[in-house]
Amino acid sequence: MSGQAAEFSRENLENVLKRRFFFAPSFEIYGGVSGLYDYGPPGCAFQANIVDTWRKHFILEEDMLEVDTTMLTPYEVLKTSGHVDKFSDWMCRDLKTGEIFRADHLVEEVLESRLKGDKEARGLVKDANADAADDAEKKKRKKKVKEIKAIKLDDEVVTEYETVLAKIDGYSGEELGELMKKYNINNPSTDGPLEPPIAFNLMFETAIGPSGQLRGFLRPETAQGQFLNFSKLLDFNNLKMPFASAAIGKSFRNEISPRSGLLRVREFLMAEIEHYVDPENKSHERFHEVKDVVLKFLPKDVQQAGSTEPIQKTIGEAVASGMVDNETLGYFIARIYQFLIKIGVDENRLRFRQHMANEMAHYAADCWDAELHTSYGWIECVGCADRSAYDLTVHSNRTKEKLVVRQKLDEPITVTQYEIDLEKKKFGPKFRKDAPLVEKFLTSQSQEDLIKMKDELKNNGKVVFKVSGIAGEIELDNTFINIEQRTHTEHIREFTPNVIEPSFGIGRIIYSIFEHRFWSRAEATERCVLSFPPAVAPTKVLLVPLSNHEDLTPIVKNISKVLRKQQIPFKVDDSGASIGKRYARNDELGTPFGITIDFDSVKDHSITLRERDSTKQVRGSIEDIIKAIKEITYEGSTWEESTKALTPFETQAADDE
Amino acid sequence: MSGQAAEFSRENLENVLKRRFFFAPSFEIYGGVSGLYDYGPPGCAFQANIVDTWRKHFILEEDMLEVDTTMLTPYEVLKTSGHVDKFSDWMCRDLKTGEIFRADHLVEEVLESRLKGDKEARGLVKDANADAADDAEKKKRKKKVKEIKAIKLDDEVVTEYETVLAKIDGYSGEELGELMKKYNINNPSTDGPLEPPIAFNLMFETAIGPSGQLRGFLRPETAQGQFLNFSKLLDFNNLKMPFASAAIGKSFRNEISPRSGLLRVREFLMAEIEHYVDPENKSHERFHEVKDVVLKFLPKDVQQAGSTEPIQKTIGEAVASGMVDNETLGYFIARIYQFLIKIGVDENRLRFRQHMANEMAHYAADCWDAELHTSYGWIECVGCADRSAYDLTVHSNRTKEKLVVRQKLDEPITVTQYEIDLEKKKFGPKFRKDAPLVEKFLTSQSQEDLIKMKDELKNNGKVVFKVSGIAGEIELDNTFINIEQRTHTEHIREFTPNVIEPSFGIGRIIYSIFEHRFWSRAEATERCVLSFPPAVAPTKVLLVPLSNHEDLTPIVKNISKVLRKQQIPFKVDDSGASIGKRYARNDELGTPFGITIDFDSVKDHSITLRERDSTKQVRGSIEDIIKAIKEITYEGSTWEESTKALTPFETQAADDE
Repeated sequence: MSGQAAEFSRENLENVLKRRFFFAPSFEIYGGVSGLYDYGPPGCAFQANIVDTWRKHFILEEDMLEVDTTMLTPYEVLKTSGHVDKFSDWMCRDLKTGEIFRADHLVEEVLESRLKGDKEARGLVKDANADAADDAEKKKRKKKVKEIKAIKLDDEVVTEYETVLAKIDGYSGEELGELMKKYNINNPSTDGPLEPPIAFNLMFETAIGPSGQLRGFLRPETAQGQFLNFSKLLDFNNLKMPFASAAIGKSFRNEISPRSGLLRVREFLMAEIEHYVDPENKSHERFHEVKDVVLKFLPKDVQQAGSTEPIQKTIGEAVASGMVDNETLGYFIARIYQFLIKIGVDENRLRFRQHMANEMAHYAADCWDAELHTSYGWIECVGCADRSAYDLTVHSNRTKEKLVVRQKLDEPITVTQYEIDLEKKKFGPKFRKDAPLVEKFLTSQSQEDLIKMKDELKNNGKVVFKVSGIAGEIELDNTFINIEQRTHTEHIREFTPNVIEPSFGIGRIIYSIFEHRFWSRAEATERCVLSFPPAVAPTKVLLVPLSNHEDLTPIVKNISKVLRKQQIPFKVDDSGASIGKRYARNDELGTPFGITIDFDSVKDHSITLRERDSTKQVRGSIEDIIKAIKEITYEGSTWEESTKALTPFETQAADDE
Repeated sequence: MSGQAAEFSRENLENVLKRRFFFAPSFEIYGGVSGLYDYGPPGCAFQANIVDTWRKHFILEEDMLEVDTTMLTPYEVLKTSGHVDKFSDWMCRDLKTGEIFRADHLVEEVLESRLKGDKEARGLVKDANADAADDAEKKKRKKKVKEIKAIKLDDEVVTEYETVLAKIDGYSGEELGELMKKYNINNPSTDGPLEPPIAFNLMFETAIGPSGQLRGFLRPETAQGQFLNFSKLLDFNNLKMPFASAAIGKSFRNEISPRSGLLRVREFLMAEIEHYVDPENKSHERFHEVKDVVLKFLPKDVQQAGSTEPIQKTIGEAVASGMVDNETLGYFIARIYQFLIKIGVDENRLRFRQHMANEMAHYAADCWDAELHTSYGWIECVGCADRSAYDLTVHSNRTKEKLVVRQKLDEPITVTQYEIDLEKKKFGPKFRKDAPLVEKFLTSQSQEDLIKMKDELKNNGKVVFKVSGIAGEIELDNTFINIEQRTHTEHIREFTPNVIEPSFGIGRIIYSIFEHRFWSRAEATERCVLSFPPAVAPTKVLLVPLSNHEDLTPIVKNISKVLRKQQIPFKVDDSGASIGKRYARNDELGTPFGITIDFDSVKDHSITLRERDSTKQVRGSIEDIIKAIKEITYEGSTWEESTKALTPFETQAADDE
């Protein structure tokens, strides 16, 4: 058997994943719930191996502080983080049918279908419906637009539609509503009117405790639980900086209409790192170890120029040229690359795409996504963002708990700055319950603002300002406040660290690897293979006794015992199926090695080792074969190196006996 | 330093767990949410090691099929399983203050406080309040009853109260309400009236999807997700029986008023096994491997006799005598024992308690809890139940999906039985929408019922019966039904497997091990130690350079590299603290080994190895020391065996230098 591959077919892959129970819709016997999937034994083992590799690659290697924080999260925390207000998609209701559409997806789909209809009308395609059905099948989405009408559009309309589609991810709800009005977008099945888009928050809400009054959510990310433990972690780390925390756990997102299988689900496994770094020094101690790693970058200026052609360079060059903001961010980008390659991602289908200014959170200094190419297009699988001091600052402001690092300065420094003194005992009588708000407003002014205020006070004898949350203007004279420039000597530097956050969507990575590692043998396309790297393959070895003859049983038991002792995951297949069928099943499960036990094994204790991808076979003693498996699986050796002392083995009819 | 222990103090333990960030209240800077805790780095690593051990001990060793199913669960599934109707506690509201009490806890606490007041009135205790305060401190619960009044009770009232308290776990909501009326139990702080107990469902509810119409819950256990995948798992197992599935994941319980720290929380990690077995053959292939394991049993008859004195015998005897229902249940009980001992449970504080008839679910054939003794009393940490065919049957009935095993019979069998034939075309016109209900009622009659019906039909010319859900009686004559005895030959046996379910509360086990493994050195009670077994200790080795002198740095780096390569989790403590202080910190973290690097290390590359519990030290080469660590931690060797070739090492002042 050769290692040649037939053309990729998503349908074939999905059949294999279903047949071998890598995953399946949750609650399928109850009709299922969209966006929820269960992992069966091979999917679960694959996931566990990837998590284990992640833990070793990041946490152990870098001595990160792993935490396990709760999914249930009270309202206040997510209000502060911004998720209550901003973590939402836009949805439109059809009040008559009760249907709900995700606004951006609807606009996208309707305009795309009109463009296809236009092409048919222009005679550029034969049958847009057949074409779209094919497309829909490929994309496996439930299309809202059932029929495409061959209607020619004006040239300028085509251009407009194309411009809208190119920017579809960036529209606000209001803008989407305007587009729907302008282009007369209704419910595609009934043509009935839709309500204007409203924000639908994507967090699952629940009530904590019996009173029903403590609102809570299921976390949308693991990050917040890490931020809230910042001070405890810094203590745990003996106050040393920089350091990183990490968490692996489930997060939740109440998608409006989940699609694309494992790529967009409502409950998913994440692995996130929060690396805390001095904002004035974002160098990384181990950057030199990765500086020569060559990556494919899609920086924002290339995207702005309308290109999707990645730039290939080393991470060292990328940081030196300023394309990647800093060494720490660059270090993690390279480490993400190394991790993804290790677990089976195809390096030709991996790129790092920089966020455009309009995609990036306002506080972020820089952000790169590791995108993996699949039959659904390029998919964001890992985010790597410099979140600046945003998170610690907002939680600290809200809770009044200091989330800072205090560093003894080698040399004391003198600091000259403007300071504001409040005559606090006058604030209470004047502002009553608003007094804390006014005080907070005044003490949080920047140097620049203080200078302006000082001038205003000097020139007008008073300052006039507005405070958010208090009606009307506020006037204060110098019996309330005093602004002065002072000079202090400081021995301690206190700062809020910045956060570099690599954030992994494990399910998306897993699905992408399924696609990257799936192929069919060219000479028999029904013979499918999942070529997982041995280190992450769900099972490492299949034991195949030639028959159920009792002479073979003790050998199977003996090899099982040895494998179990060495903690090498294996399965025995002593079913009545032919050897060929058993190996075919095994190839679909991605098991890298097969061991055949035959009647020669009874005589001389030799066994045959088969390699999944090449179907090559070698013969040797139990000890030597297991040694080879162990070296290739866990010690980074290759098939060639580890089997060169073993005897090549040719069966009469290879896999098909 | 000796290994002698001072008396256990929960306060000391809690201080250590907090100081070393084993765990902490979640969202603490926001004031916390009761019943939610985060694990910090050592707690998280300890948990990961226990999960890893569990996976190897059960899943790998027994070739179980691990699955990862979703936490979000639709209403219908949990309605069928019985959780919507029965998974609740009883709560009472004070409508005036808005306070909510868990009814059984309130009755328990009020009656206990009255009994204490009685004792004081009788002069049996000096100050019941002081006593109770002490008690409350010990139990660390927020007591509702703030003050105990020294009021003497009638002797028969005392007896009544004691009887109620002994049965407190078994009352229904109505009964609790009657007790509250009878004993005049009000809000303890205001003496205001309370509403009668109402059922409070302990599941967290949420809405799935944007319409808000798909009700869902966070799963209260991982079991249901496993049951629903039964057929896929049986297929995956090539239809072979028996087999087991397993799941490790978070579950949720919206406790009315969580208390007892990690023992009663709202979000917790579970590990559950569902072992599917032939109801007619519950023997276990590997039972002989465990039959001589000696366990402490507290069977139901001993409990009924009012004793808590466990019976010590082998699991072989327990099964043979019928005390434990069957071999498979017994096998898992023994395997649970072995697991718990492996991860650090004190075998003197472990017992297996059988459920009493009133505790056990009606469908369960037998149920034993592994209980661990802590300062909170005996705590249920692992349940091991024979759930019969209940779960698969209810889901199958609800969904009409067969959840059965079909086995080819070695010899065909002849089955003679009564069968009922329905004249279906007459049912529709007569019963209209009720027809399916009537048909289902008739076709699900037992053999015994069919014989009765046949007689009735013969004697009266008709049968009269009632069907739940249909008003009035139903009469049918023999134009509708026909009952006959027939004989068939069957080649296939179809059956619903029974489920043996070992279910582990990982958080409760973890907390119990903290208590079992915590002690203070007798000569310095502030020196606390957590004596975790090396295999599950969060970190295995602490590297302690004598000073920050640059000569020592390369050696620390070199040892770090070797340990990392061998994947032995370690920490470096190069803080300025004294060696003694650093080891003390380390003992609190439960790290079994310390390596000291001193100036002799520079000369001859020798290092010192320190054992946590005994504080014994030996000296040897880097290779030999790491070899010893590896043997003791991962290969089951002892300190004595693995260090006998190394040189005993005496420091001038041992740990206190």
